[in-house]
Amino acid sequence: MIRAELRPRVAAFTSRRGRPPGLAVVLAGHNPASEIYVRHKLRALDEAGCRAQLVRLDAAAAFTEVLDAVARLNTDGAVDGILVQSPLPTEMGAGAEQRVFDAIDPAKDVDGFHPSNVGLLVQNRSSLVACTPLGCLELLERAGIPLAGRHAVIIGRSNIVGKPMALLLLHRDATVTLCHSRTVDLPAVAREADILVAAIGRPAFVTAEFVKPGATVVDVGITRLDQASEVERLFPAGHPRRRQFQANGSLLVGDVHPDVEEVAGALTPVPGGVGPLTIAMVLRNTLTAAENRA
Amino acid sequence: MIRAELRPRVAAFTSRRGRPPGLAVVLAGHNPASEIYVRHKLRALDEAGCRAQLVRLDAAAAFTEVLDAVARLNTDGAVDGILVQSPLPTEMGAGAEQRVFDAIDPAKDVDGFHPSNVGLLVQNRSSLVACTPLGCLELLERAGIPLAGRHAVIIGRSNIVGKPMALLLLHRDATVTLCHSRTVDLPAVAREADILVAAIGRPAFVTAEFVKPGATVVDVGITRLDQASEVERLFPAGHPRRRQFQANGSLLVGDVHPDVEEVAGALTPVPGGVGPLTIAMVLRNTLTAAENRA
Repeated sequence: MIRAELRPRVAAFTSRRGRPPGLAVVLAGHNPASEIYVRHKLRALDEAGCRAQLVRLDAAAAFTEVLDAVARLNTDGAVDGILVQSPLPTEMGAGAEQRVFDAIDPAKDVDGFHPSNVGLLVQNRSSLVACTPLGCLELLERAGIPLAGRHAVIIGRSNIVGKPMALLLLHRDATVTLCHSRTVDLPAVAREADILVAAIGRPAFVTAEFVKPGATVVDVGITRLDQASEVERLFPAGHPRRRQFQANGSLLVGDVHPDVEEVAGALTPVPGGVGPLTIAMVLRNTLTAAENRA
Repeated sequence: MIRAELRPRVAAFTSRRGRPPGLAVVLAGHNPASEIYVRHKLRALDEAGCRAQLVRLDAAAAFTEVLDAVARLNTDGAVDGILVQSPLPTEMGAGAEQRVFDAIDPAKDVDGFHPSNVGLLVQNRSSLVACTPLGCLELLERAGIPLAGRHAVIIGRSNIVGKPMALLLLHRDATVTLCHSRTVDLPAVAREADILVAAIGRPAFVTAEFVKPGATVVDVGITRLDQASEVERLFPAGHPRRRQFQANGSLLVGDVHPDVEEVAGALTPVPGGVGPLTIAMVLRNTLTAAENRA
């Protein structure tokens, strides 16, 4: 388990520097999904022996309070990594997230969203890369999936997943295709993939016709369904996930349709696939930031 | 002609600011190709009414002299754009170019090679983008080639052309594939392209079998051939380019084989295609940098 593997590095840092690696998470408002993500991140860091600190801001906080919190954390020597949870309250405006990412000290930018870290990724000399695509790469490499010379197709061109994923796979010598909502005949393009990454945020969008038999499919999407009709459309009567929905009143599903399991050579589950690796990468990036700053 | 179109902007800047937009080019050593490129750039800026300044350094100059020149130009208020011509003398070491690009004030980085400008390009909010891919885009748009939804295949993944080209086309809603030396069955992947960009620096590498009939082909490569046997292999007896070679003793050719002309819907010539547009983009970026700084 990757988080266990990182523990000796945490211990070595702590004994050398007289303090543990420190992560600060800024959370504004009470988005339920954000609450869960942040709790997972803090717990993972805590369990690994890091100092994980939550900076809570009210949903009604002014945007400048977020910037002030970041400025304070930038100068706090015990803080190695700063993470501002997206989305910020909508009242803060459309460009609020990127303005905050721009304000984070690039050396503490464990999310890898600062433009200078993104630029270093393009030039293949970065040390802090966005955690979700980094987690996908780790997952592929740990599963022993060959990347060099393989055709990777990525559906979704976000700054947070699609584009950094493309760069990471390119630097592992894959041939990389980036697809999106404007792509013509998306299923046919996706079927060219040896490795297919779905990162669009539309539940069960990637059906069996998108997948070449035997391809590796990485499902980055995660959506909470709370309508029985949606769940019944995806899973046949008697399917264990229907029972899960009945027990919990909601169900987490990915961008990949359950039928893909029959076609794919390997498929990451949702939940339990990319998510935990993403959390592990928050820990690894915090550690990297701490070591680089020391 | 794009350079003529920019002249009113140059004039407006000059009358408003009391000085013309200024570009400084740093040239170390006497690489013959670099001498030609730099002369073209300086002349284009000069003709457009800008102040173009050449900072010459000896081939034996120390690397710190290049950094010193950049530091001086960074603080010179009359200099809006700084361009350090690649390659630097090999004695300066493998990472020398990028170390110099990192040292240029991002606001004056008309080559768009500074990591923070590269990161802004990824996030689709850059103002200074590498001139060669920008020139290719300009060429496609001026030719009225539709990009949205089209499949663009780029051969070559350099930081200077391939990767920024991919991002520019992605942001124009093309589906984008990046290929390289490790790509399996490159001709078949290239044949998927509606728009094929060849940027590998291997003369006549892209043959007719790489090209779907009717595709648009952009030839970024430029190599000087000085062996009659090479020229004769590419051009049949009686071909005008053979006579050109005989007259000059050398011949400039692109990455695209002459036979592609029969298959492609449109093909940019070498010389005379991407090159002049690249020069025009140096002018446009200098002007943009000047306006942004003002």
